[in-house]
Amino acid sequence: MNETMVTVVGNVATTPVYRELPSGPVARFRLAVTARYFDAVKNTWNDGHTNFFTVWARRALGSNVQASLAVGEPVIVQGRLKVRDEERGGQHWTSADIDAQAIGHDLSRGTAAFRRVGRADAALTAPPPLREPEPEPVG
Amino acid sequence: MNETMVTVVGNVATTPVYRELPSGPVARFRLAVTARYFDAVKNTWNDGHTNFFTVWARRALGSNVQASLAVGEPVIVQGRLKVRDEERGGQHWTSADIDAQAIGHDLSRGTAAFRRVGRADAALTAPPPLREPEPEPVG
Amino acid sequence: MNETMVTVVGNVATTPVYRELPSGPVARFRLAVTARYFDAVKNTWNDGHTNFFTVWARRALGSNVQASLAVGEPVIVQGRLKVRDEERGGQHWTSADIDAQAIGHDLSRGTAAFRRVGRADAALTAPPPLREPEPEPVG
Amino acid sequence: MNETMVTVVGNVATTPVYRELPSGPVARFRLAVTARYFDAVKNTWNDGHTNFFTVWARRALGSNVQASLAVGEPVIVQGRLKVRDEERGGQHWTSADIDAQAIGHDLSRGTAAFRRVGRADAALTAPPPLREPEPEPVG
Repeated sequence: MNETMVTVVGNVATTPVYRELPSGPVARFRLAVTARYFDAVKNTWNDGHTNFFTVWARRALGSNVQASLAVGEPVIVQGRLKVRDEERGGQHWTSADIDAQAIGHDLSRGTAAFRRVGRADAALTAPPPLREPEPEPVG
Repeated sequence: MNETMVTVVGNVATTPVYRELPSGPVARFRLAVTARYFDAVKNTWNDGHTNFFTVWARRALGSNVQASLAVGEPVIVQGRLKVRDEERGGQHWTSADIDAQAIGHDLSRGTAAFRRVGRADAALTAPPPLREPEPEPVG
Repeated sequence: MNETMVTVVGNVATTPVYRELPSGPVARFRLAVTARYFDAVKNTWNDGHTNFFTVWARRALGSNVQASLAVGEPVIVQGRLKVRDEERGGQHWTSADIDAQAIGHDLSRGTAAFRRVGRADAALTAPPPLREPEPEPVG
Repeated sequence: MNETMVTVVGNVATTPVYRELPSGPVARFRLAVTARYFDAVKNTWNDGHTNFFTVWARRALGSNVQASLAVGEPVIVQGRLKVRDEERGGQHWTSADIDAQAIGHDLSRGTAAFRRVGRADAALTAPPPLREPEPEPVG
């Protein structure tokens, strides 16, 4: 209850980083979300503010994100927003993370060929861990 | 302002119907959205109520939906909800439509290979009209 | 998971109907949600489509809705959308309900004086049941 | 298009600060939004992560927020999320702002008496400026 759910449409800004943690696969990437406004007088679209988020995809979603997303691709992401404040090395640091529930390529920009992956398959096709499991970093 | 925006995650329930209208391509399909609840006592997921929507995809999104979506595929859809009441043949009729802004395959269920389509391409690759343009039906 | 959450801003269209059920208080009212579009060329706002919903408020929210809302008041409502299809008296019938989690007067249209109500108070101040509990009607 | 709309339910964490700017009245306050999870095994609600936002209310909404909201009150807020990164005094600084479209007291926690304010009234009842207009601060 009272979770901050968001749905954002934007572009993958960094190559997804994938890892195997004890809790399962996790992939993360930066997402750029630029608001666009229609100028009815000039009949043109103008860019507004760009929000950047770190998107986290876990378990099967993490494996499939790793196998499917590349920098620059347009996506729609739904998930829980977490705004985090931290003190690191004497610096105040805030990040805006989205813990994703669903992610998909935005078909308003192109076509996509989908292949269903079962849970067993997801485990089998998951790439090997990049390094030892550790506490998840922020950002 | 005051639009009813929704984001839903569900399954394509009917083959998309595609048409060329004077205003551009339009595809529509039925979407089944089933809520799922976790029973922490039994440690299982249970199905809840299923909402059905008619999803409308216009212009490039319509062409790409036609080229990408098949019955049973899991999708995430963001758009404007329109609840319509009508009198047809003496029958009261209500429908729940979503005028989609973004649609994507849900990567929590599988992988997707994306191919960007430019606007010019979208026009060129659009299939020929199935029949004469006419007022859009509901449902 | 996969619930259809919506947030709508509109006007109370019917006087809330309040009842005491075995599961607790419940209030329901019709809500009219009219999209508005800014015409930048004419510099005016125009009305678009109006969505009607039946809003359900349960437990403390139900009691407080009953004590606070009147026809015509502007409100913001967040909750789960349920689109229901039924056969009643040979008629096909669909309704769009919102099972509300939070409801508030929209302060963009006026001011509000708030008084916190505890759970004990909510039970004490709840008006007596209007009639015997029965299965909840739709619409 | 592609704006990051959010709806959050939380508590007013700071007294609204009100100012008259050349563009009209503006009020801002900090909002604390704490996710809550139901533990079905223990039959209790537990607190999760708390998101903090700076909420901005402009024009009539700003005047009415100033006249209606106090620290600790529960509210529902809908608006555009803006995540901002800045360099100030050698420090990296990120803030999460919500440019509000609608704000209301959450009736799941208490009752509210609403009084409609017309546009003319809003101007008349607006309190005098606290100080000279200046660029809006972040945070």
